[in-house]
Amino acid sequence: MPTIVVDGPRIPSIELKRKMVEGLTDVAADVYGFDRKIIHVLIRENAPENVGSGGRLIADIHAERSET
Amino acid sequence: MPTIVVDGPRIPSIELKRKMVEGLTDVAADVYGFDRKIIHVLIRENAPENVGSGGRLIADIHAERSET
Amino acid sequence: MPTIVVDGPRIPSIELKRKMVEGLTDVAADVYGFDRKIIHVLIRENAPENVGSGGRLIADIHAERSET
Amino acid sequence: MPTIVVDGPRIPSIELKRKMVEGLTDVAADVYGFDRKIIHVLIRENAPENVGSGGRLIADIHAERSET
Amino acid sequence: MPTIVVDGPRIPSIELKRKMVEGLTDVAADVYGFDRKIIHVLIRENAPENVGSGGRLIADIHAERSET
Amino acid sequence: MPTIVVDGPRIPSIELKRKMVEGLTDVAADVYGFDRKIIHVLIRENAPENVGSGGRLIADIHAERSET
Repeated sequence: MPTIVVDGPRIPSIELKRKMVEGLTDVAADVYGFDRKIIHVLIRENAPENVGSGGRLIADIHAERSET
Repeated sequence: MPTIVVDGPRIPSIELKRKMVEGLTDVAADVYGFDRKIIHVLIRENAPENVGSGGRLIADIHAERSET
Repeated sequence: MPTIVVDGPRIPSIELKRKMVEGLTDVAADVYGFDRKIIHVLIRENAPENVGSGGRLIADIHAERSET
Repeated sequence: MPTIVVDGPRIPSIELKRKMVEGLTDVAADVYGFDRKIIHVLIRENAPENVGSGGRLIADIHAERSET
Repeated sequence: MPTIVVDGPRIPSIELKRKMVEGLTDVAADVYGFDRKIIHVLIRENAPENVGSGGRLIADIHAERSET
Repeated sequence: MPTIVVDGPRIPSIELKRKMVEGLTDVAADVYGFDRKIIHVLIRENAPENVGSGGRLIADIHAERSET
């Protein structure tokens, strides 16, 4: 019953989400020596205006980059 | 100030959410021996394409089941 | 695969932890309409100097109370 | 790489989100003695029907208040 | 700045923790298309008496197994 | 009832924890326009061998730095 929670930006396709869940599960199953069956993954998709890095919103960092 | 966070699928009605919050609060207040007033609950509703179990997306597990 | 995380103070006995896990699981299984088997619970025990309420450490609130 | 996660109600403007991220980052950088660059913040906005306090949904507490 | 949090049992060696962090980071960097540098991982190790599965403490499930 | 969770390294004194809780609470109370009373803070202290950045354990990054 290990649980892996990933917080990041939006993941644009179900194929990529599938890849995320498969990949993270494989790593954890391998390290813990557990059956994949008992590993759970939660993907959280966060809007760029709800995430800050270095004291600035990702939304603002993106806006500035696209201006230049 | 204990906080309970429940991560699960969408809960389809406010009556069920009410029941969740009441029930979880009662259990925690009882175990901690605290007044219900200081117990907080957060319900997180997750899309089936953002949750994985056993290395597979819940969305895919559901799709496969409904095919058969 | 719903997961319930409880953050609170130390729970002083395994009997109480058992009661917490049983109780929370029953509530969630009932609300979601799921088998208890797929419900997971994590108990986090926090030191009073690592929790704040109203801008004050619980450790300080306790110390003040026991002085009076 | 400290991470601060804030769970609260909806924040109605990007200016307020900016203020939240800046303020929390400054406090953490100051306490840890770290450069602001490595501090991350996640804002989670929760619907009043997904939050409980004292065993009741915030949605119900609000509804009751506006009735009186 | 994606953050991955893994909640599971104790991981008995630093080599295994290294493998966990490397593996999870690689998967996330690949799926997001981000540089590994901005991916963070937190490992949380939970005592078997603080985790429940199917309404029972892992500590109790283990105890029962070793009896038989 | 907003809740702020800070995940970072060990904070070596209660004075610093006090400062963290006061500071984060003030920022959140100000942004939400709420009374400080309903703001909660949780400090999580993580060992350097349980945190990864850029695919490497903080414990390893520190060890390498002190070698040079």
